Amino acid sequence: MQLQLQTWQEVEVYLQNSRGIILPIGSTEQHGPIGLIGTDAICAEVIARGVGDAAGALVAPTIAVGMAQHHLDFPGTMTMRPSTLIAMLRDIVESLARHGFERFYFLNGHGGNIATLSAAFSEIYAGRSLAPGSNIPPVKCRLRNWWANQDVQALAKELYGNAEGSHATPSEVALTQFAYPDAIKSAILDPPVAPWGDFTDAADYRSKFPDGRIGSNSALATPEAGRRLYEAAVAAITKDYQSWTAG
Amino acid sequence: MQLQLQTWQEVEVYLQNSRGIILPIGSTEQHGPIGLIGTDAICAEVIARGVGDAAGALVAPTIAVGMAQHHLDFPGTMTMRPSTLIAMLRDIVESLARHGFERFYFLNGHGGNIATLSAAFSEIYAGRSLAPGSNIPPVKCRLRNWWANQDVQALAKELYGNAEGSHATPSEVALTQFAYPDAIKSAILDPPVAPWGDFTDAADYRSKFPDGRIGSNSALATPEAGRRLYEAAVAAITKDYQSWTAG
Amino acid sequence: MQLQLQTWQEVEVYLQNSRGIILPIGSTEQHGPIGLIGTDAICAEVIARGVGDAAGALVAPTIAVGMAQHHLDFPGTMTMRPSTLIAMLRDIVESLARHGFERFYFLNGHGGNIATLSAAFSEIYAGRSLAPGSNIPPVKCRLRNWWANQDVQALAKELYGNAEGSHATPSEVALTQFAYPDAIKSAILDPPVAPWGDFTDAADYRSKFPDGRIGSNSALATPEAGRRLYEAAVAAITKDYQSWTAG
Amino acid sequence: MQLQLQTWQEVEVYLQNSRGIILPIGSTEQHGPIGLIGTDAICAEVIARGVGDAAGALVAPTIAVGMAQHHLDFPGTMTMRPSTLIAMLRDIVESLARHGFERFYFLNGHGGNIATLSAAFSEIYAGRSLAPGSNIPPVKCRLRNWWANQDVQALAKELYGNAEGSHATPSEVALTQFAYPDAIKSAILDPPVAPWGDFTDAADYRSKFPDGRIGSNSALATPEAGRRLYEAAVAAITKDYQSWTAG
Amino acid sequence: MQLQLQTWQEVEVYLQNSRGIILPIGSTEQHGPIGLIGTDAICAEVIARGVGDAAGALVAPTIAVGMAQHHLDFPGTMTMRPSTLIAMLRDIVESLARHGFERFYFLNGHGGNIATLSAAFSEIYAGRSLAPGSNIPPVKCRLRNWWANQDVQALAKELYGNAEGSHATPSEVALTQFAYPDAIKSAILDPPVAPWGDFTDAADYRSKFPDGRIGSNSALATPEAGRRLYEAAVAAITKDYQSWTAG
Amino acid sequence: MQLQLQTWQEVEVYLQNSRGIILPIGSTEQHGPIGLIGTDAICAEVIARGVGDAAGALVAPTIAVGMAQHHLDFPGTMTMRPSTLIAMLRDIVESLARHGFERFYFLNGHGGNIATLSAAFSEIYAGRSLAPGSNIPPVKCRLRNWWANQDVQALAKELYGNAEGSHATPSEVALTQFAYPDAIKSAILDPPVAPWGDFTDAADYRSKFPDGRIGSNSALATPEAGRRLYEAAVAAITKDYQSWTAG
Repeated sequence: MQLQLQTWQEVEVYLQNSRGIILPIGSTEQHGPIGLIGTDAICAEVIARGVGDAAGALVAPTIAVGMAQHHLDFPGTMTMRPSTLIAMLRDIVESLARHGFERFYFLNGHGGNIATLSAAFSEIYAGRSLAPGSNIPPVKCRLRNWWANQDVQALAKELYGNAEGSHATPSEVALTQFAYPDAIKSAILDPPVAPWGDFTDAADYRSKFPDGRIGSNSALATPEAGRRLYEAAVAAITKDYQSWTAG
Repeated sequence: MQLQLQTWQEVEVYLQNSRGIILPIGSTEQHGPIGLIGTDAICAEVIARGVGDAAGALVAPTIAVGMAQHHLDFPGTMTMRPSTLIAMLRDIVESLARHGFERFYFLNGHGGNIATLSAAFSEIYAGRSLAPGSNIPPVKCRLRNWWANQDVQALAKELYGNAEGSHATPSEVALTQFAYPDAIKSAILDPPVAPWGDFTDAADYRSKFPDGRIGSNSALATPEAGRRLYEAAVAAITKDYQSWTAG
Repeated sequence: MQLQLQTWQEVEVYLQNSRGIILPIGSTEQHGPIGLIGTDAICAEVIARGVGDAAGALVAPTIAVGMAQHHLDFPGTMTMRPSTLIAMLRDIVESLARHGFERFYFLNGHGGNIATLSAAFSEIYAGRSLAPGSNIPPVKCRLRNWWANQDVQALAKELYGNAEGSHATPSEVALTQFAYPDAIKSAILDPPVAPWGDFTDAADYRSKFPDGRIGSNSALATPEAGRRLYEAAVAAITKDYQSWTAG
Repeated sequence: MQLQLQTWQEVEVYLQNSRGIILPIGSTEQHGPIGLIGTDAICAEVIARGVGDAAGALVAPTIAVGMAQHHLDFPGTMTMRPSTLIAMLRDIVESLARHGFERFYFLNGHGGNIATLSAAFSEIYAGRSLAPGSNIPPVKCRLRNWWANQDVQALAKELYGNAEGSHATPSEVALTQFAYPDAIKSAILDPPVAPWGDFTDAADYRSKFPDGRIGSNSALATPEAGRRLYEAAVAAITKDYQSWTAG
Repeated sequence: MQLQLQTWQEVEVYLQNSRGIILPIGSTEQHGPIGLIGTDAICAEVIARGVGDAAGALVAPTIAVGMAQHHLDFPGTMTMRPSTLIAMLRDIVESLARHGFERFYFLNGHGGNIATLSAAFSEIYAGRSLAPGSNIPPVKCRLRNWWANQDVQALAKELYGNAEGSHATPSEVALTQFAYPDAIKSAILDPPVAPWGDFTDAADYRSKFPDGRIGSNSALATPEAGRRLYEAAVAAITKDYQSWTAG
Repeated sequence: MQLQLQTWQEVEVYLQNSRGIILPIGSTEQHGPIGLIGTDAICAEVIARGVGDAAGALVAPTIAVGMAQHHLDFPGTMTMRPSTLIAMLRDIVESLARHGFERFYFLNGHGGNIATLSAAFSEIYAGRSLAPGSNIPPVKCRLRNWWANQDVQALAKELYGNAEGSHATPSEVALTQFAYPDAIKSAILDPPVAPWGDFTDAADYRSKFPDGRIGSNSALATPEAGRRLYEAAVAAITKDYQSWTAG
């Protein structure tokens, strides 16, 4: 149930039974020679829609540009400054809270968003914490990364072991191949498994990870593995969403 | 050519031949009893992709939430404050300008975005105007509303005459019906043609336009009309994009 | 009735009969070799005062610096970033709303302000739209450009035809000559009618419009024409103000 | 020499001989039952123009709205938040610095502006202090209150002694009477000399100073005294401006 | 080596041999009936100083107020909004980077700071990532929580097992008892081990954790345990600091 | 009574008898060849604690970094932009006001903070002044510089006469020697008494005051003089605090 495909009256009815909404958030950033620039947004979006269907939950439009400053030395990458992303998230939550939404389930596709999302939650909560007598409604925000649950982790390990890496992983690439089979890319990766390391800004990142990958062998991705990952993620996250909104 | 479906190396190649990019921007707001909440984002997105295909141009991910404060009394509506939207647009343009993009073609689906988009362009230009000796690269931004060209206007007039109205228009509803035939809604509109008027904030809006429409009869929309509008818009805007980026 | 020339007790009395106020806003920017840097502020101010006298309305102090980033390559130009101007306008409206003012009639002298003014209105309205249960009072803002009415347009056309242009127009120069006859300038304009075109930042503007004018022949201005334009504008805008505040 | 009454080419010539500019800044706030709401802006403006004439210096348009939050319980008062005023002043200085202005002489008419003006200077200087290798040009800002010099102080003391007070002083009222003889007000002040004290926000201020004055007897003002104060202020400040810009 | 106890010339000498600095950051927030409000700032400060002595590293003044919105329903708690804390951290890093510092080691005493600190690092890096041709110097920031290393974790487990909890832990209380033996408090805790759970804003937090603790039995703390934790933390973090700054 | 060394329950009890709190604020900036970088923060902190003990008042954690942009050309200096410091101070006051604190006594150690502190007070007050019907609690803020009272001034004059100067004064250096006898520095000052002057940004400052001092001979400082200054300051400020909070 995409919010975008409802009328306002259908949302009004929905709110009589549920106060929850799923908000997919990803990123628009390089994912190596094989991974799509939209990988993180695509993964978040397709899983969110799967969960929305399974749980009968509304799914907000995808926040496609996240915090990706470290990838800016690769063409096509876009970023929000953390301060901008915090302002966006505050406006989004305030808008929906006005209608009676109370549970905001951010389904995240990008590790680089985690800190800023959490900071944004605190910024939002702080509004009410600092003004206890005001009319600001209480809300609850939850951040879940699509890959950060036991089932998906186990499957990724089974499929790719150490070649999973941490950026442009075969798991996320597989998921996009399942979602967009017409946009499967191929390239010779050299070395097959990319180096590991930490990083600071965009120049530092590119100097350490010349083709953009970290620790991964994206070439192991297949659409079929993507399907399995999709199903595992949707099942696990649906369960989590349902138990959280029931609480 | 969706940016999200490219690799960074494909973008690198693209930049050797073009410095332009199309950025669809819409809104997430009520569109009356028949119109979808995502109408403005959907219209901008589908036309942008059509233009991208026709012109061989990259299309950035859709900015789905715009400036819609006046619709907030209807459930499901989301807004960015203008100051937030300005910050977002600045980050987006700065990100892409870093890679060498110079022409930013914002294809807009929502009248309420126009002022803030224009103000954002000035905010971006001001950065360079106030710091002439800096390294800030020159960029050009263009705003085009999908409906604001002779061909689309003529077709809308032919199809709907005065019942086109200005919000939840049969034209935009038709376009979404063409794009999402499974999400066609029906409802009895009373009165068939909604009232006209101006408005300020959300409470004022709702008091004047009880079901959300302004001056329109959304029920006249058909998917077939949507197809014709789509084709007219894509043709007109492709021409405009090509001549602008060639300039 | 200038606000600046009242006491607070006179304003208190005024508010018993009217909730409206006129706020002139202009710009401080080059207007070609003959036009004054203060042209837009002067035009807005003198017409606002004329309307204030005719309608018995309070006139706030003139906002003399507007959004003029594109003129910054010409000495003497000053600009506010759009984000700064939005903050200013919000503070101004909030201040006066606290006293009971409800209708804010911005009389504008500069095309470059329009987008930012409209965005500022939305920023102000959004405060109330996002916090429906708060104590924020409802306000209405209106933007009127002194030249954008039938009578002034007709007169400008009669006086200057195509040589009116769009920046450093003979109409606005004439108006300043009427207002400040001691500050009339003369210069040989070459070419007499300046080129047309669009522009982005300050460097781009100056490269296209070397003496600052766009499409106009400022040399056609006379103080007598200024008087006629003044009278036409005051009459038209007084009527608009009165009907709006009566609504 | 008002900036508003020059052309950009005249400013270009001016900059060949001087890098200084005078910027009058006042406030729009209650000044008791006799004082004008525009008192502080008027005083700053008329003296700035006098100094500009005497020193051959450019005078920027008056910043008419300053920091006056404490007066907001009296109708007609307008304020900028300090954070907004800092942003405004930064934009103003950056605009003019781009043309080559280096000395910014803020001629102030309102005690409540002093702290924020000084903070704004630091904000502006901090831009360059934190980015030593950048292209940000060095500027010097100076704040002078029209009344804070020996000659004006002595004259005010001679004229009014302890009845000068600190808000709605007979001196500032006299100056506005000299400048706007048609706007002289009269009222019975009770008590003749207002109470003294400090204050925090608007409610606190009004509870302590019921008619708006602090420590003053505004009724002692005369236009003739205003003329003497004007002349003393212009002479003293002209000297200060000339010696500062010569330094 | 506290920065506060050096002269600028001593810092100049220091920079010839090291580009690193340790920045303790804590919080000012309730820590249950026995824990001090300054617990997190005290822990970060004393360990930072220990590490500074051991490693010959400069230690910046402690950032004593962090992100603690969720504790605001308990008297004495202070918070920075995340957006404010990001601005502070940016100013701090920019200030020190100007002198040539390159490695910023934030030694953190409060879990609630982690997300905002990480977001602030990205905000800082983004400045350079978005302006590759500028003069912004490259910096590296590192966040280490004093308790998040193998040795401290093992010791805490040995000392307290499951009664360690996650807020007002006996470990952190013990550390403050070691540091401030004169400020040891006692109270009967009921229940001895506090409940577990998650939380959103301040009202939600207090409703779930009535005396402020989460999952901990603060009463198990002893100054002697504090000494052991201090020594373990200093040793582990000194090693980490040295290897990081050597890299 | 340091806030950091209390429990929340002790603060709760404190608030039954007092609504006041002392907030020391200093700076982290060069103080010449003998003065410590932390001079201003140390002075504010030790005196605040002395006053807290004498008056039975709570003392908040020291704000160690203030507005010191002009010292940035000397290694070790840190600054907050004024806009950042205003945001910090607002968050601090809002946090404590939520618990019932009403009187905020800022004990300041740095002249460069004065303007920004005062502007911050106005920013805080403006929140309530602009929203009279809201729940924002009234607060009172007071700024006192430790040296700006008759007794300390007289003592400084007696001790140092004209060699006191205005930056890196022997008085403040003496106070730090009293507080930190192990951190006493010595250096040959040339000239013994530093030059006087005003300044703008960091480059300007350093060009005029090559070793960082202004008008002072820091070498005259002794710990014994520091003790006398400490006692004079604590006595004078305790009296001021008590009479203010009793008012």
